Amino acid sequence: MVEVRKPIPVEEAVHQVMNHRIEGSEEVVLLHHSDNRRLAESVVAKHPVPSFDKSPYDGFAFRSEDTIDASLDNPVSFEVIEHIGAGQVPTKVIHKNQAIRIMTGAQIPEGADCVAMFEICRTFKENGIDFMSIKRKMRPDQNIIKEGSEVTNGETLVKVGALINPGVKALLATFGYHKVTVAKKPVVGVIATGTELLDVEEELQPGKIRNSNAYMIASQIIRAGGEYNYLGKLADEFDSSYQTIKKALDEVDILITTGGVSVGDFDLMPAIYEKLGADVLFNKVAMRPGSVTTVAVRGNQLLFGLSGNPSACYVGFELFVRPILHHMLFSDNPYLKRIKATLVDPFPKPNPFTRFVRSYVSYENKEVLAHLAGMDKSNVVSSLAHTTGLMVLPGGTRGFEPGTDVELLLLNEADTQREFNS
Amino acid sequence: MVEVRKPIPVEEAVHQVMNHRIEGSEEVVLLHHSDNRRLAESVVAKHPVPSFDKSPYDGFAFRSEDTIDASLDNPVSFEVIEHIGAGQVPTKVIHKNQAIRIMTGAQIPEGADCVAMFEICRTFKENGIDFMSIKRKMRPDQNIIKEGSEVTNGETLVKVGALINPGVKALLATFGYHKVTVAKKPVVGVIATGTELLDVEEELQPGKIRNSNAYMIASQIIRAGGEYNYLGKLADEFDSSYQTIKKALDEVDILITTGGVSVGDFDLMPAIYEKLGADVLFNKVAMRPGSVTTVAVRGNQLLFGLSGNPSACYVGFELFVRPILHHMLFSDNPYLKRIKATLVDPFPKPNPFTRFVRSYVSYENKEVLAHLAGMDKSNVVSSLAHTTGLMVLPGGTRGFEPGTDVELLLLNEADTQREFNS
Repeated sequence: MVEVRKPIPVEEAVHQVMNHRIEGSEEVVLLHHSDNRRLAESVVAKHPVPSFDKSPYDGFAFRSEDTIDASLDNPVSFEVIEHIGAGQVPTKVIHKNQAIRIMTGAQIPEGADCVAMFEICRTFKENGIDFMSIKRKMRPDQNIIKEGSEVTNGETLVKVGALINPGVKALLATFGYHKVTVAKKPVVGVIATGTELLDVEEELQPGKIRNSNAYMIASQIIRAGGEYNYLGKLADEFDSSYQTIKKALDEVDILITTGGVSVGDFDLMPAIYEKLGADVLFNKVAMRPGSVTTVAVRGNQLLFGLSGNPSACYVGFELFVRPILHHMLFSDNPYLKRIKATLVDPFPKPNPFTRFVRSYVSYENKEVLAHLAGMDKSNVVSSLAHTTGLMVLPGGTRGFEPGTDVELLLLNEADTQREFNS
Repeated sequence: MVEVRKPIPVEEAVHQVMNHRIEGSEEVVLLHHSDNRRLAESVVAKHPVPSFDKSPYDGFAFRSEDTIDASLDNPVSFEVIEHIGAGQVPTKVIHKNQAIRIMTGAQIPEGADCVAMFEICRTFKENGIDFMSIKRKMRPDQNIIKEGSEVTNGETLVKVGALINPGVKALLATFGYHKVTVAKKPVVGVIATGTELLDVEEELQPGKIRNSNAYMIASQIIRAGGEYNYLGKLADEFDSSYQTIKKALDEVDILITTGGVSVGDFDLMPAIYEKLGADVLFNKVAMRPGSVTTVAVRGNQLLFGLSGNPSACYVGFELFVRPILHHMLFSDNPYLKRIKATLVDPFPKPNPFTRFVRSYVSYENKEVLAHLAGMDKSNVVSSLAHTTGLMVLPGGTRGFEPGTDVELLLLNEADTQREFNS
């Protein structure tokens, strides 16, 4: 009576999905609208930084050799021949015992090879002419930020696939990237299945629950850098469900359905995959939660049949959908960052299969600690609110004591940005 | 000639700014548009979860007491009187030796107190009537998810100020929050000062640089949860600058200017604060970079005069502006998360003042490691692209060897979400 499915190991399942990864595409956006997008072109220095020798301070620029005899007892005087602010260009050339008053960021005048801060200079007037004097010896290049000392021309500064954060945006602005070529956001369709689902605005009814998975998945898609297209709920009825899904596939890169993938009498997805001519890569994974996760391929589209169970749905997305999206966003390491941590809470349950436990991280004296985000039943939605990582407990283990070393997948990748950069 | 400013300690500066913190306001958005917003109302369970006793499996529901004599040699038979899917409500009451075929998530029928999975039941027909038999004893409540076992009615699940992540969004959907009351995004005006600044689309010119700070700050505002209003560049000219800033203050909650706060001849901000009647809280902080950071108060508005130097500007925003924004977003812990880490790279420079070093984090065998994001000169913009934390080196220290314990402020707060929740 019941179809028997053969579970495959989770690594093998991820591998099979990634074998059918989809290539991303590019689009051009204004720099103003580029936050949190991913680069489709490397940021390359289009000129040296700084692009001219400049002053780090407000002060006077002059020839260091003119201070060779300067000392506390023997101030050396300079005629102040010009006065320039940042952005102004010196018009005069410095000769012996001449100085130009210069502001932070301004270009060093020709002939000068050092800058003395205001604080160590004394200014005075004689016969209507401005002078300044200094009692210290200056070295060549002292207080001069040399052209190209930060960045040389042509240098690759940030690589394709990196997230555009405030620092990357500053770099793009520096090099005149008024428009930026970024990865197009993959469009992911979301369909919820199940007659038990009420819309969020509906009053609760006996035997029914509100559709939370569609909202959660939409939010996971946004977090992963994609764009969601919510295509509504399916009734547990074959023909209309098939039509809805077939039509959805015209509008999206990837389709996620939640629910309908078990072997229950009302679970329609297996038959829909068949009628669509989609190849089912697997329909059972040796993991908890999310064992009924199903992935199918149709042409260059992927169809993810996630469990209707909120936590299983959540985990299924992060393990299988997220790496596909990150690949489409040009990341060369699309997987969740895996770190080691010390388990704080007891986890007494046995793990016949690889288990992904909703967790969050804290830090204590340089050590990473892993906490359970809540009760770990696959049907508990409230703990997902606190989840920032998934603890990976290998199959065949029998429960974990506080203090044990565990592995953890981090769900927020902003902290691992460095690895995407050059 | 040069105004002498008295630097105040950075903690004291932050404290003074927070003494003038601004209260945030609320707005209502559709749940669909609530991602990454912050809650202005706690998420409270409006009903128990589950709201009815339900089945975790596809199987049969019946009275456990009817299996008291069941064993491998003595299967007990039940008449299958109904067949319900998730979302369907049982219409019949279970009596002795009756069972109802039930799908995952469906409501437990009246009279039943356990569910047996399909896998341990045998089904058969006799005289056109459906039967199933079972060879095991079942316990009362076995395989029943009890009403309220996940969440009890009225329970506070997520607190005001929390970021709406995928799990929080799922909770909001579960409890019918079709619309959500969130913190209104603080509006932050951004004005860049300096005649040396070119627009991003302009060709490079001698002595000039492109305006990268405005883009960077806009991106930091977005990351902190605010909304930016870019009000353009000021020329280094008093009257028009004063008018622009005065007008800007009609449109924003907070005004950030970059540059113009030194004591250089072209630095207009001090005089503009005076003419505006704004109280300057401080104009020098004992820190590097960002010592010239100036903060002024005018009525219930804050004016942040950040350095024109990119890294100083970046650090000034994160230390002084971000906590104000997070307070306005109802966070009860608006400061950057501070953790300990092991320094990986040498940092030989002496630190006469507290220094904030652009860094990023990695993890090695449960240990948090701090790396330098690049050359640490306050004028180096490229390292900001890789920065995910600021290493805090106390003033009066003389350089740090690899392996030293350091403190680090984390810039991406998604990972510390747990602390904002209940």
